[in-house]
Amino acid sequence: MIASRSACEELDRSDSLAFARDRFALPEGVIYLDGNSLGPLPKETAGRLARTIEQEWGAGLIRSWNSADWINLPRRVGGRIAGLLGADADEVIAADSTSVNLFKLVSATLSSVRRQSTSRRLILSEQGNFPTDLYIAQGVVRATGEQFEIKLVDAGEVEAAITPDVAMAVITHVDYRTGHMHDMAELNAVARRHGVIIAWDLSHSAGAVPVDLGQSGAQLAVGCGYKYFNGGPGAPAYLYVEKSLQQQLESPLAGWFGHAAPFDFAAEYTPAPGIDRFQCGTPSILAMQALEIGLQTFDGVAFADIRRKSLALSDLFWNLMDNHCGEFGFNCIAPRPHERRGSQLSFSHPQAYAIMQALIDRGVIGDFRQPDLLRFGFTPLYLRFADIWDAVMILRDVMLTESWKYGRFQQRNAVT
Amino acid sequence: MIASRSACEELDRSDSLAFARDRFALPEGVIYLDGNSLGPLPKETAGRLARTIEQEWGAGLIRSWNSADWINLPRRVGGRIAGLLGADADEVIAADSTSVNLFKLVSATLSSVRRQSTSRRLILSEQGNFPTDLYIAQGVVRATGEQFEIKLVDAGEVEAAITPDVAMAVITHVDYRTGHMHDMAELNAVARRHGVIIAWDLSHSAGAVPVDLGQSGAQLAVGCGYKYFNGGPGAPAYLYVEKSLQQQLESPLAGWFGHAAPFDFAAEYTPAPGIDRFQCGTPSILAMQALEIGLQTFDGVAFADIRRKSLALSDLFWNLMDNHCGEFGFNCIAPRPHERRGSQLSFSHPQAYAIMQALIDRGVIGDFRQPDLLRFGFTPLYLRFADIWDAVMILRDVMLTESWKYGRFQQRNAVT
Repeated sequence: MIASRSACEELDRSDSLAFARDRFALPEGVIYLDGNSLGPLPKETAGRLARTIEQEWGAGLIRSWNSADWINLPRRVGGRIAGLLGADADEVIAADSTSVNLFKLVSATLSSVRRQSTSRRLILSEQGNFPTDLYIAQGVVRATGEQFEIKLVDAGEVEAAITPDVAMAVITHVDYRTGHMHDMAELNAVARRHGVIIAWDLSHSAGAVPVDLGQSGAQLAVGCGYKYFNGGPGAPAYLYVEKSLQQQLESPLAGWFGHAAPFDFAAEYTPAPGIDRFQCGTPSILAMQALEIGLQTFDGVAFADIRRKSLALSDLFWNLMDNHCGEFGFNCIAPRPHERRGSQLSFSHPQAYAIMQALIDRGVIGDFRQPDLLRFGFTPLYLRFADIWDAVMILRDVMLTESWKYGRFQQRNAVT
Repeated sequence: MIASRSACEELDRSDSLAFARDRFALPEGVIYLDGNSLGPLPKETAGRLARTIEQEWGAGLIRSWNSADWINLPRRVGGRIAGLLGADADEVIAADSTSVNLFKLVSATLSSVRRQSTSRRLILSEQGNFPTDLYIAQGVVRATGEQFEIKLVDAGEVEAAITPDVAMAVITHVDYRTGHMHDMAELNAVARRHGVIIAWDLSHSAGAVPVDLGQSGAQLAVGCGYKYFNGGPGAPAYLYVEKSLQQQLESPLAGWFGHAAPFDFAAEYTPAPGIDRFQCGTPSILAMQALEIGLQTFDGVAFADIRRKSLALSDLFWNLMDNHCGEFGFNCIAPRPHERRGSQLSFSHPQAYAIMQALIDRGVIGDFRQPDLLRFGFTPLYLRFADIWDAVMILRDVMLTESWKYGRFQQRNAVT
C-alpha cells in the first residue's frame, strides 16, 4: 500500500526503466495518461526529420530512394516492429493505416477460404470491438456481395464461438474501452484446431504488453504506429503475416509497391514473394521515418520490465482511486486479474465527459470514451509513479472543488 | 529559334513565373528535370514541419487533433487541391495513396454498376497505363470474383471503345512514359452519352497542365501529392468525386475516418454524407502538413502561365535536342501537338539507362524508364530556360566524351 507521494518517489528512484523518460520531449506541467491514443514526441524525432527533409529530400531529391534507402524503409521499420512482437523480420511490413491493412488481410483471407470451402460463412468478432475493425469487416462483406456474414459475441464467448462455420475471426488483443486482454496463445490454439485464422488487432496492446506472435501461434495481425510505438499522429501502421501463409494470401490492394518487380513496369500484377506483397502504393517517407524513431524508444528495454511497471502503475492508480476518490462514484470497468488486463484503466462516471475536460484543463491528459468513461493509459517508458500520485490527487481536487459541474463543456473529438 | 545561352537568360529575365523559384530549396549544381517523379523541397516545409512536430505533437499532444485542427487537415488539403483542379472544395479529399484511392473508387463504382445493370462487364483502360492503375483494377476484379473483365486499348482507341458493355473506364490524363495527354472534356462527354463513368488518374498532369474537373464534366479522379504538388516523398494522395455521385458510391474501405460520426464509436458503419466518406484510417499528420506546404507553392500562380512556360520549356528542350544532339540517335516519343502533350518529354535510345546515369552524375536529373527511355519533366515553378540550355549541352558533352559507354552502371530503382 503506497500511502504518500514520497513513497512514489522512492519507487521512481529504484525504477529500472527510469532512464527511458529522457528519450521523450514531454511538455512541462502535463501528466500524460493518453499514450494509448497518441504517443508523445521522442527527442530524436525533430532532428532526424529535419535531416530527412533537408538532406534526403532537399539535397538528395529523387536519388534518395536509393542513396538514403527510402525504398527499404517499410521493410526496415517492419523488421523493427517484428523484433518487438516476437515475429521474424520478414513477417512484418509497415504500411498504410490499420484500417487499410485489416482490409487487405480480411479480404485476402476470405478469398483464400472461398477457394477451399463454401461452408465457412462467418466472420467472428467481438461486440464492442474497436469500431473501425467492424466497419472494415462490413466493407469487405459488402464488396464480396454478402457471401459472408459477421457474427459478434462478447469477449468471454469468443473461444466457444470458434466453430467449423467460421471463415475467420477478427479479434482485438486488448479492448480499447475495458482494457480486457485476450489469451492470444489459447485462442490461437483453439482456432488452429478448427482451421480458423484469427486476424489480431494489436493497436491497444503492442508496445505496452508482451506480445509474442511466433510463440503464441498467431497467423495474422495488424496494429497502429501512433500509440505505444510513439510514431507520431497518424503514423503508418503495420501488418504481420506468418511466413507459411504469405504465399497463399493475395492482397486485393494490388498496388505497385507490392509487385514482385515494381520497376519493371509490367502490365500484369505479380505479387512479391514474401511480406512485401502487402504493400500497396508509395509510402510516406516522412511518416515512416518518424515511426522508426518512435520504435527506437524501445531500444534496450525488456518487455518483462515494461509489463511489470505497467501493472505496478495501473495497480497504484486503481488503489489510489479507491482510497482517495472512493466517495465520488467512479466504477472501474477493467478486469482485475493481471493476466486479463492491458495497460489501461477505464472508470465509468455519469459526468465523465465534464470531469475529463476539467482534468485536461489541469494538465492531466486522459481520454473520454462514449458513453461515460474516463480512460487512462499507462506507458512505462515515460510515466513516473509520482505522476500517478499527482494525477489522482488532481482528480480528487477536481471532484472536491466541483467547479467542473457548472462549467460548459462542449464535446470534442479525440483520436483514440 | 533560341541559339544561345544568353537568349535563354533573356527569357528568364522576362519570365512572369521567375519569382516562384525562390519558393524552393534547390541544391546547388543540380538541374532538376524530375519534378514529375518527386517535387523538390519547398523552403517553408522544414520550418512548418518542425512546428508541427515540436509544438503541435510535442507540446499539444493528443489535444492538437482539435486545437491544431488536425482533424480537418484532409479536408483543408483537399480543398486546396480542389482549387487547383477546377473542383469544389467538398469534392476533393486528401487521403492514403493513389493506389488505395483508385481501389476505393473503382470498387465503389463497380458495386454501384452491379446494382443497376448486369450487362456492363468491362473495365476499360489503356495499354501502357501506369502499372499500378492496372494492378489495382486487376485486384478489384479478383476481389469481386471475376465478375468484371479488363479491356485494354491503345490511347487513340479509348473513345471508340466506350461502348454500352463498359462498366467504367480508368484513364490516365497524361501518360507517364509518352507524355500523351487525353482530351478530358471530349472523353467525358462520350462517356456520359454511354452512361460510363471515367476515373481519371491525374498523377502526371495535375499541377503541370490546366485541369478543370468541373468544366470538363469529370466524375471521378485520383492523383498523387509527391510529384508536381511538391508534397514530399510518398506524400498523401487525393481523390475527387463529383458531388452528384457522392451519395451513390460507398467505399469498400469503410474505415472510421469515413464514418458519419467517427467519435460516436457506433458498431454499424454509416458513411459520412459527403466526400469524407472516402477517408479510411487515421491520416499521417506530418505527411498531410508537408503536402499542404507543397500546394502553397502554387499560391498566386495562374495555370495559364504554368502551361505557357511548360510548353516553352519543353519546346526549347526538344529543339535543342534536335540541333545539338541530333547525331546521337535520340528519338522523342512525345506527341508533337501542344494540345496532346503533358509537361514531359521522353527520348528513346538503346543506351538510355547508361546515359541517364551519366547525366545524373553530372547533376542533370531525369528518369530512366523501361525499356529504353530518358524521361525529362518540365516544371515551370522552378525551372529556368538557362537550365534547359545547360541540360542539353551537358547531355551533348556526355555523348561526345562517350566515357559512359565504358562505365559500369548498375540498374537502380527510382520511384516514378
